Amino acid sequence: MPNTFGKIFAVTTWGESHGIAVGAVVDGCPPRLALAAAEIQSELDRRRPGQSDIVTPRKEADSVEILSGVFEGLTTGAPISLMVRNADQRPGAYDEMRDKFRPSHADYTYQVKYGIRDHRGGGRSSARETIGRVAAGVIAKKLLAGVGEGGVEIRAYLTQVHDILMPVEALAEFPTLAAVEATAVRCPHLETAAKMIERIKAVRAQGDSVGGVIECRIRGVPPGLGEPVFDRLEADLAKAMLSLPATKGFEIGSGFAGAGSRGSEHNDIFETRDGRVRTVTNRSGGTQGGISNGEEIVFRVAFKPTATILQLQATVDVQGVATELMGRGRHDPCVVPRAVPIVEAMAALVLADHWMRHHAQTRAFAM
Amino acid sequence: MPNTFGKIFAVTTWGESHGIAVGAVVDGCPPRLALAAAEIQSELDRRRPGQSDIVTPRKEADSVEILSGVFEGLTTGAPISLMVRNADQRPGAYDEMRDKFRPSHADYTYQVKYGIRDHRGGGRSSARETIGRVAAGVIAKKLLAGVGEGGVEIRAYLTQVHDILMPVEALAEFPTLAAVEATAVRCPHLETAAKMIERIKAVRAQGDSVGGVIECRIRGVPPGLGEPVFDRLEADLAKAMLSLPATKGFEIGSGFAGAGSRGSEHNDIFETRDGRVRTVTNRSGGTQGGISNGEEIVFRVAFKPTATILQLQATVDVQGVATELMGRGRHDPCVVPRAVPIVEAMAALVLADHWMRHHAQTRAFAM
Amino acid sequence: MPNTFGKIFAVTTWGESHGIAVGAVVDGCPPRLALAAAEIQSELDRRRPGQSDIVTPRKEADSVEILSGVFEGLTTGAPISLMVRNADQRPGAYDEMRDKFRPSHADYTYQVKYGIRDHRGGGRSSARETIGRVAAGVIAKKLLAGVGEGGVEIRAYLTQVHDILMPVEALAEFPTLAAVEATAVRCPHLETAAKMIERIKAVRAQGDSVGGVIECRIRGVPPGLGEPVFDRLEADLAKAMLSLPATKGFEIGSGFAGAGSRGSEHNDIFETRDGRVRTVTNRSGGTQGGISNGEEIVFRVAFKPTATILQLQATVDVQGVATELMGRGRHDPCVVPRAVPIVEAMAALVLADHWMRHHAQTRAFAM
Amino acid sequence: MPNTFGKIFAVTTWGESHGIAVGAVVDGCPPRLALAAAEIQSELDRRRPGQSDIVTPRKEADSVEILSGVFEGLTTGAPISLMVRNADQRPGAYDEMRDKFRPSHADYTYQVKYGIRDHRGGGRSSARETIGRVAAGVIAKKLLAGVGEGGVEIRAYLTQVHDILMPVEALAEFPTLAAVEATAVRCPHLETAAKMIERIKAVRAQGDSVGGVIECRIRGVPPGLGEPVFDRLEADLAKAMLSLPATKGFEIGSGFAGAGSRGSEHNDIFETRDGRVRTVTNRSGGTQGGISNGEEIVFRVAFKPTATILQLQATVDVQGVATELMGRGRHDPCVVPRAVPIVEAMAALVLADHWMRHHAQTRAFAM
Repeated sequence: MPNTFGKIFAVTTWGESHGIAVGAVVDGCPPRLALAAAEIQSELDRRRPGQSDIVTPRKEADSVEILSGVFEGLTTGAPISLMVRNADQRPGAYDEMRDKFRPSHADYTYQVKYGIRDHRGGGRSSARETIGRVAAGVIAKKLLAGVGEGGVEIRAYLTQVHDILMPVEALAEFPTLAAVEATAVRCPHLETAAKMIERIKAVRAQGDSVGGVIECRIRGVPPGLGEPVFDRLEADLAKAMLSLPATKGFEIGSGFAGAGSRGSEHNDIFETRDGRVRTVTNRSGGTQGGISNGEEIVFRVAFKPTATILQLQATVDVQGVATELMGRGRHDPCVVPRAVPIVEAMAALVLADHWMRHHAQTRAFAM
Repeated sequence: MPNTFGKIFAVTTWGESHGIAVGAVVDGCPPRLALAAAEIQSELDRRRPGQSDIVTPRKEADSVEILSGVFEGLTTGAPISLMVRNADQRPGAYDEMRDKFRPSHADYTYQVKYGIRDHRGGGRSSARETIGRVAAGVIAKKLLAGVGEGGVEIRAYLTQVHDILMPVEALAEFPTLAAVEATAVRCPHLETAAKMIERIKAVRAQGDSVGGVIECRIRGVPPGLGEPVFDRLEADLAKAMLSLPATKGFEIGSGFAGAGSRGSEHNDIFETRDGRVRTVTNRSGGTQGGISNGEEIVFRVAFKPTATILQLQATVDVQGVATELMGRGRHDPCVVPRAVPIVEAMAALVLADHWMRHHAQTRAFAM
Repeated sequence: MPNTFGKIFAVTTWGESHGIAVGAVVDGCPPRLALAAAEIQSELDRRRPGQSDIVTPRKEADSVEILSGVFEGLTTGAPISLMVRNADQRPGAYDEMRDKFRPSHADYTYQVKYGIRDHRGGGRSSARETIGRVAAGVIAKKLLAGVGEGGVEIRAYLTQVHDILMPVEALAEFPTLAAVEATAVRCPHLETAAKMIERIKAVRAQGDSVGGVIECRIRGVPPGLGEPVFDRLEADLAKAMLSLPATKGFEIGSGFAGAGSRGSEHNDIFETRDGRVRTVTNRSGGTQGGISNGEEIVFRVAFKPTATILQLQATVDVQGVATELMGRGRHDPCVVPRAVPIVEAMAALVLADHWMRHHAQTRAFAM
Repeated sequence: MPNTFGKIFAVTTWGESHGIAVGAVVDGCPPRLALAAAEIQSELDRRRPGQSDIVTPRKEADSVEILSGVFEGLTTGAPISLMVRNADQRPGAYDEMRDKFRPSHADYTYQVKYGIRDHRGGGRSSARETIGRVAAGVIAKKLLAGVGEGGVEIRAYLTQVHDILMPVEALAEFPTLAAVEATAVRCPHLETAAKMIERIKAVRAQGDSVGGVIECRIRGVPPGLGEPVFDRLEADLAKAMLSLPATKGFEIGSGFAGAGSRGSEHNDIFETRDGRVRTVTNRSGGTQGGISNGEEIVFRVAFKPTATILQLQATVDVQGVATELMGRGRHDPCVVPRAVPIVEAMAALVLADHWMRHHAQTRAFAM
């Protein structure tokens, strides 16, 4: 089931960019969780097009309907079906894409795999598919808010746009949601955010696009989550992130930089702090042996520049004949700011599922 | 089933470092594949300890037995059970680990998750677990050798040890197995390999360790492998790689560097070459929209420095009391060279499984 | 994912009896299959309430919408989302069920499991959930129609209502769809059908209900489907059938009667007939060792009498206090005739999934 | 993974009748469960050949080794690998089976599915495969013994051999293990047992075989186990039972007889008894809506007569040419008595898995 993610808390997404609707079915949700469409809506609004002047002006209200699984405001344990109708369908705008493969898009690979493709706005490969993920992520976040003493808190934000990097020292503290949402670019360091916005606007003016990096920090995760050997927490996070459109890399803790270090520099020394086992440093990024160690989980995701650019590009058509394609339409010159809630949603899905799995194996039977 | 990887071609591994044996069960293997223990053995020998003077001197013959699923030299379609007995058990050598948590190992997290742990040599979290993966990978590689015209070929090698990097221009060509195996460090660029070996020896002399990076290139993969949206080929590769001990990052194609580029620089232009659709460049790394596009698949995996160092380190014991631990025993100062066949094995498992899944969805019913 | 059935060709159903809608997501469907809502509709009409004078008069048009996965009349390989809005919601009619547990319904068990329940019309436990199964089954049937030379044909029908049994000799021939649909009770033996209808009407007049047995015959299944050891074809059929509301038993081939026979009477002797290996008799019911042998698959499913009866019954309320409940509303005095298309749908889902799995393991790699 | 059963508590079996060994890997087992090989051994001895004069005289010690997952007598949460070497291999005895298909065995279907088969003693289709199930079932039973106040107790026994039926009134009480084990035939009603043994001996003397029925009763199951809609408890039990060799049917509670009754007779009225909600009768067989209701779970499984009979039978060879086959070797004239521990093991696997799943969904998050 390639359109399903998770083993116990599982989400299945469906829908195409210019079809009737997109949606998700969340299976395995615990009963008696308060859930209202408005809560899901507010998170969908974070990823919605048209929310600021640096993203696509595509107009989509993205209004979510809860079709099942909630009774009198509470989940029932039954599958939760969520649907968002596609409003701003302009299929005619995509006629050229029917016959030509857009460079670095999924047009060619879908065509060759399936022998057919819904070319309108990328069809199933469109980032609109992530609406279902974000909606499901809201439920996972609500569940996680009740874990441990302070709940699990997930915060993603941009640390890089093109070659503009947030200074490392800017993030001693866990950033607040307000700090992230303060700017359209979702970088909590205001000075860097200003530069990023400027760069995105400049690039857009050139009909070009840029990539970037999202960092995600998660606090409040109890030690013990994640399962050896294949379902390590970082393995499932990596899969979750690389399943997002436009991602090219994932690293946890020290990441690729850690590969250049020595063990004597890199090891996280244990100490007892505030009455429990802690590490002095956190180069591990919150997991050891694939299992959370109670420290902050810290990972980063690399996004490539938006493939659609408003420039003339060479390509081939479905017969393989050389042709040219002029990008047009309403696209984000940088998708990364809108990907922030999606990264958070996927992290929440991974953690909620692992929490339930951990519980099943270690708590169901008293020993 | 956290110890199982794959959906149709699935491997389940079992065993601890100093238990009776380690092994794997491969389920879903096609029938009538010629398979001999000797073939598996020769790949196990690539990851075996004691194979050169830069790896651990632990003596393990690592002799594999095929216990089921093969009849008169051919697979039967039944599960293939593979077992390697642990020979060099020195449990006494690990007594100190019973009570103390080794920094940046999985001792603490296993203890807190399960309330019990086999402390001998890391128990289940030991890299000996990967023996089962390599054994299963041999079968996957054999299957893949029959795909397409020239078969699928997977080649992993080191591009970095500590701060020594192989020059990028050194790899215009797909490296031969002989070039990779020419040195103990498994870097096909001899000049760089010499420096790497020198560095590993120097670090070992200091009782320290270093990390590194493995690059993996795969050629001959037909277009069409990988499934939207969660089981993208790169998502499953990322999960496979981050499920390996000591890994901290994964990137495909342009990876993190791609995040710093513009769309106009990054897009892979299509052309028709040799009668089929190809891309002029390969910044995508062989997949688009999660599906192989017929170009080389290229990814990199970051490994942290070996956590065990022969130095005195502060830590806590199982009661949380501060103590010290002196690393000892037989360890690799750099695990990365021995990880090369493991990376290849995991890539082979991902591809074989996806090939079968692709086939099931697109070829079972003629349409 | 308890609301998902199938491994490669997988259906996930959602929705409650008196919620907004019920639906299904079909994942893994092959691309390029012609599919129109009208085809699904005509099969939904077979299970719809109000279709004859022996079933519930509940008025539901049960109009299906295809929300995704079909483009210009063909499946695309993307998940197919199907939705049927609930029209005839009369929640007030169920107020008494909020506090009282209906005997032999799922009210108590849902309440005790989840601590909450949508009491309206049985909520998730309602047979309306099977709408999604029937819709998905249409797709599976279409796929199977293309298998082998004549396609796979699935025919279910009643052989028993209460104590009225169809004579065994009545079924030498594989019944036609027309013969099954000739009467409202879906028994192809007209004389028996007449008695069944009479009995159902008599029972209804008494405010009572009756059970029955459905037999299902499947022809055209190529030998080789089904997987040892846990996913035997009959094991998956048994699970499929026992997952239907009101089912109490499953038997294949000789079934329970076979337990009373001798090996010398029961064995199916092989012969070569029409150029291929056949069995002279078919007590095995079409599978041996869990794998289809090319003979007709024949199984039977036992359905208990409808739990809702229009009589006063003792019960307890949610506090456990003794009370009484008068069944009312619009119910089938015998659910079995309407279960016929559902049994066929589930059989189709099992076979389509197994066909794809069989293909994946035995045909993906040429050996 | 057709050789894996269970979602959280999962067992994978491997091995052929006359290969090197048979075994199982149990994944998901909770940590800190005391487990010794001797406990597994004593249950294996219940299914072992040669245990009485009415079963096959094949000599197999069936000595189990625990290869992993247990440390100092306790499970660790890591996969438990169990192996039983095949001792009494007499491959020469099976030479005739290489070329001829035994009637009502799996020889033909394996051959046609895989194009190859290990013909020795049935290879993978042999009932020796169930050794792994029984071994895993011991672990499940131990876990279940700790559930609720008195633990979950599973008792299977024969109610029928050929046409000899245990009188229904003989079983008002839950039978003791001692009563079941009192006779070789495992029917707790001594008078019936004596007749069954006599019949089996008579049939064996004729070189023939007979089938039978096992009933299984389970008490102490808390209400709430089982998941709508596809993973109903009875659906998973049905699959478990039909996955056993030689089974032809499954029924729960009233079963097929229930199909012949009226709702007013069949419904289980609720009452409050001993302070909790109970049913007055138990025609439901312990589940309603697929979820346990706290009553005894009662189901029956039909077994066909042993396919191997010591008589000359017509058949075809692998080329499809008509030939004859004389059954010989050491076979059970009735496999049903030895299937008793296997039925219990499968029931235990289903319940342990469902307990863990139930816990995960309803208890992991406090609501």
